[in-house]
Amino acid sequence: MKKIDNPDRKNWKSLLQRTMLATDEITETVNAIFGEVRDTGDRALKKYTHKFDGIALGSFKVTAAELDHATNFVADDLKKAIDIARANIEKFHRAQQTKKTVVQTMEGVECWQEKRPIQKVGLYVPGGTAPLFSTVLMLAIPAQIAGCQEVILCTPPNDEGKVHPAILYTARLCGVTKIFKLGGVQAIAALTFGTETVPAVYKIFGPGNQFVTKAKQEAIKYGIAIDMPAGPSELLVVADDSANAAYVASDLLSQAEHGPDSQVILVGRSKQLLVQIEVELEKQIEQLPRKAIAKQAMANSKMIFVDNDDTAIDLINYYAPEHYIVCTRNAAVYIERVHNAGSVFIGNFTPESAGDYASGTNHTLPTHGFARQYSGVNLDSFQKSITFQKISEIGIQNLGPVVQQMAAEEQLWAHKNAVTLRLNDLNGKTL
Amino acid sequence: MKKIDNPDRKNWKSLLQRTMLATDEITETVNAIFGEVRDTGDRALKKYTHKFDGIALGSFKVTAAELDHATNFVADDLKKAIDIARANIEKFHRAQQTKKTVVQTMEGVECWQEKRPIQKVGLYVPGGTAPLFSTVLMLAIPAQIAGCQEVILCTPPNDEGKVHPAILYTARLCGVTKIFKLGGVQAIAALTFGTETVPAVYKIFGPGNQFVTKAKQEAIKYGIAIDMPAGPSELLVVADDSANAAYVASDLLSQAEHGPDSQVILVGRSKQLLVQIEVELEKQIEQLPRKAIAKQAMANSKMIFVDNDDTAIDLINYYAPEHYIVCTRNAAVYIERVHNAGSVFIGNFTPESAGDYASGTNHTLPTHGFARQYSGVNLDSFQKSITFQKISEIGIQNLGPVVQQMAAEEQLWAHKNAVTLRLNDLNGKTL
Repeated sequence: MKKIDNPDRKNWKSLLQRTMLATDEITETVNAIFGEVRDTGDRALKKYTHKFDGIALGSFKVTAAELDHATNFVADDLKKAIDIARANIEKFHRAQQTKKTVVQTMEGVECWQEKRPIQKVGLYVPGGTAPLFSTVLMLAIPAQIAGCQEVILCTPPNDEGKVHPAILYTARLCGVTKIFKLGGVQAIAALTFGTETVPAVYKIFGPGNQFVTKAKQEAIKYGIAIDMPAGPSELLVVADDSANAAYVASDLLSQAEHGPDSQVILVGRSKQLLVQIEVELEKQIEQLPRKAIAKQAMANSKMIFVDNDDTAIDLINYYAPEHYIVCTRNAAVYIERVHNAGSVFIGNFTPESAGDYASGTNHTLPTHGFARQYSGVNLDSFQKSITFQKISEIGIQNLGPVVQQMAAEEQLWAHKNAVTLRLNDLNGKTL
Repeated sequence: MKKIDNPDRKNWKSLLQRTMLATDEITETVNAIFGEVRDTGDRALKKYTHKFDGIALGSFKVTAAELDHATNFVADDLKKAIDIARANIEKFHRAQQTKKTVVQTMEGVECWQEKRPIQKVGLYVPGGTAPLFSTVLMLAIPAQIAGCQEVILCTPPNDEGKVHPAILYTARLCGVTKIFKLGGVQAIAALTFGTETVPAVYKIFGPGNQFVTKAKQEAIKYGIAIDMPAGPSELLVVADDSANAAYVASDLLSQAEHGPDSQVILVGRSKQLLVQIEVELEKQIEQLPRKAIAKQAMANSKMIFVDNDDTAIDLINYYAPEHYIVCTRNAAVYIERVHNAGSVFIGNFTPESAGDYASGTNHTLPTHGFARQYSGVNLDSFQKSITFQKISEIGIQNLGPVVQQMAAEEQLWAHKNAVTLRLNDLNGKTL
C-alpha cells in the first residue's frame, strides 16, 4: 500500500482515482453480440456460448431433473449455512416493506402511494472459478418478497455444460426455477430482447465483469432498467488506535482477493496503527491462496494518515466507498456524518464478509463512487411506487379553484376546463 | 380518435405503439454541445444561449435582486394558489419519510437501513410558451424535504434574458436560490461537468423536449444519475357507463393540448359511452386556444372498446400508462389489478389536472411504458438507502461459522480468514 500523510485536498482527486471503465473494444464486442442476439435469437446464444464458455448446448434451460439432482451434491453443512443466511437476508429485506398511507391533503382529497412489484426481472449470476450462490440469495430473496411474477436467472455453464449445484440449490430454495445456462453479454442481450427460449424482462440485476457491465448499459438504450452502474469492488476502512490491526488487515485483504482491480483505502487516525497494520498485511497476505491477486490489488491501494476527524469524514464522503468499515472510538462521528457509502460496518467484530454473505444486508452495492447517488439493491429495487388519488365532490370544490388559477397561468386551458366543467355541475347542486 | 372494437391481443403491440424517441440528428447535436461545454465551460454556455435562446448573457446566475423583484410581479391570487399547492405537495411527500428500523437478524447482529439525501441535485424546468412553475414545486419540495445540500435550478431565459417571475417566486418559496438562466442541452451539460459558474451535480431531474431527454441520457455516461427516461406525456382512461362523457372528454383533451405527440387512449366498457364521448370531444375541442395542437394529438389517439374486465386490465398493464384515470362502477378491479402505471386517478371528480398541479402527488411520472419498471419522482428519488450493521462478540460467534462455510465454498479465503481471526481470539476469552 502506498502511504500518504495528510494529503492536500487538491490532490484528493488523483489520489483516490479509480480504474477506468469500459474501453472502445469492449463496446464493439457488446454491440456486435446485442445485434446478433436481437436478429437471430437462440442461434446467436448458441454461437456465443460455444465461443466463450466452450460448450455446444442443445438447450439453455436448466431442467427440473437438474434442479433435483443439484440437491444431492450440496453438503449438509453448506445447506445449513445457506439456510441461516437466507433467513437473515429475508428478515432484513422483509422489514423494508412499507404500508400504504392515505394522506388527506385537503378535505375530500385523498392521496396515497403504493409499491407494486416489477412484473419481470432478470438476475445475472457470474461464473468463473467460484460459484457465487451468495449473489443468488441477494437477488432472489428480495425479488420473491416483492412478488415479482417472472424471475429469470442466467448464469454461465462450465465447459461440461453444467451449473454449480450450490447455485441451483440456492435458486430453488428462493423460489427461482426459470434458470438459463447463459453467461456474459449474450445473457444480458437475451434478457433485453427475449429469444425463442429466454423471456425478455423489464429490469436486469447482478454483478459481472466489464463486458457484463457494458452490456447492462447497452440494455438501458432498449428501455430496460438496471440495478445500478458498476465497477470493481472496493473498501474503505477508517481506524484509530482502538482498532485491532490484525482484524483491519484481514478486512483489507478480503477485499483485495476479489481481483487485481479491487481497490482498498485505509484512512488512519493513528500513525502507530498504520505501522502495525502494514506488518499484519505482510504476514497475512503470504498465507492466502489468492495472494498473487491480492498483491496486485494492494499495490494500487492507499494508506492515508489524516490528523483530524473533519478532514477524514470529508475525504470519505469525497471517495464514496462501496464498503465502509468504521473502527474508531468516536464511531458516531463517522456514522452520522457519512453521506456517501454503500454499506457501513461498525466496530471490531463486524467484518465486511459478514455482510457479503449472511448478516442480512444486501451485498449488491454501488461501486466507483456511485454511492453518491445510488442505493444498493434493496426491496424497493424490485418495486415501483405508484401514486393514487381520489377526490370527492367536496374535494374538487376545495381544490378546483387552485388548479384553475395555476392552469390558466401556465396557459393550459383544457387543464383548467376539466375542473371548470365539474365545478359548474356542482354549483347547480346542493352538497 | 381511431375507434377499435375488441382488438386481438396480437395487434396490441402495433395498436399501442408510441412515437419514436431520439433520432441520430439529435444525438449529434447533443454530443457536440456536451463536448464544447466540457472543454470550454461558460464560453460554450454563452454561445449556445445566444444561438438557441436569442440572448447574449453576461451572467447566468439569477441575482438576489431579480428574486426580490419577481415577488412583485406575481398576482396575489396566484400566490395563494401556489401556496395551497405547495402545502399539499409538501404534506404528501413528507408522509413518504421512512424511519430507521433496526432489525436484529440474529442475537448480536444488528442491521438497519437509513435514507440519506443526495448531496447535489440539479432541477431542470423547461421554458417555452408557458412558465412551468408547477414543475418547480414538484422537484424543489421533495429535494428540500430530503435535505439535499446543494439544489441547482436551470431554466432557459427568454429573448430579453429574463425568467418568468412565477418560476423565480416559486423557486424561492421552496428554498431554491441557486438559479441559472440556462436551457436545453447546454443546461444539462453544465450540470454534468460543472463550469466556472455552474456547479456539477450528482443527479439531474426534470422534464424537457427530445433534446433535453437525449442530453440526460448522455449525462448517464459521465456517471450522473437521472430521475427517469422520458417521452411525450400520455393518458389512458378506462370508463364504463357510470362515467360522465363530458368529464372524460375534458380529461382526454387536457392531455392532448400538451403537444402534437401527446398520446391519449380511451378504453371503453360501454359502446354508448364512446359515442357520447366522441360528441363531447368534437364540441369541446373547438373551444380550446390550443385546438390545433390538440387535434393533432387526438388524430393519433385510440378509442378501444373491450367487452370484459380481464382483457381490459391486461391491455392497460400492457400499455403501462403515465396517467391512468379509472371511471368505472367496479373501480376496485382496475385499481387492485394495475401493475404498470405512473399515477392513478379514481372517480368522476378526480381529473388528471388535479394531480398535475395541486392535489399533492408528483407530476413527474414515467412515460413511454417506463411505468413497467420506474417510479415517478418521489421523496426517495432525492435520497439513497445506506445499510448499516453492528455485530457484537456474541453476534460474530453466532454468525461467523455460517460466513466461514459460505466463503470457503466460494473459494474466498481471505473472507473466511477475517472471521476466523476474530473467532480464534474470542475462543480464548470468556464472554
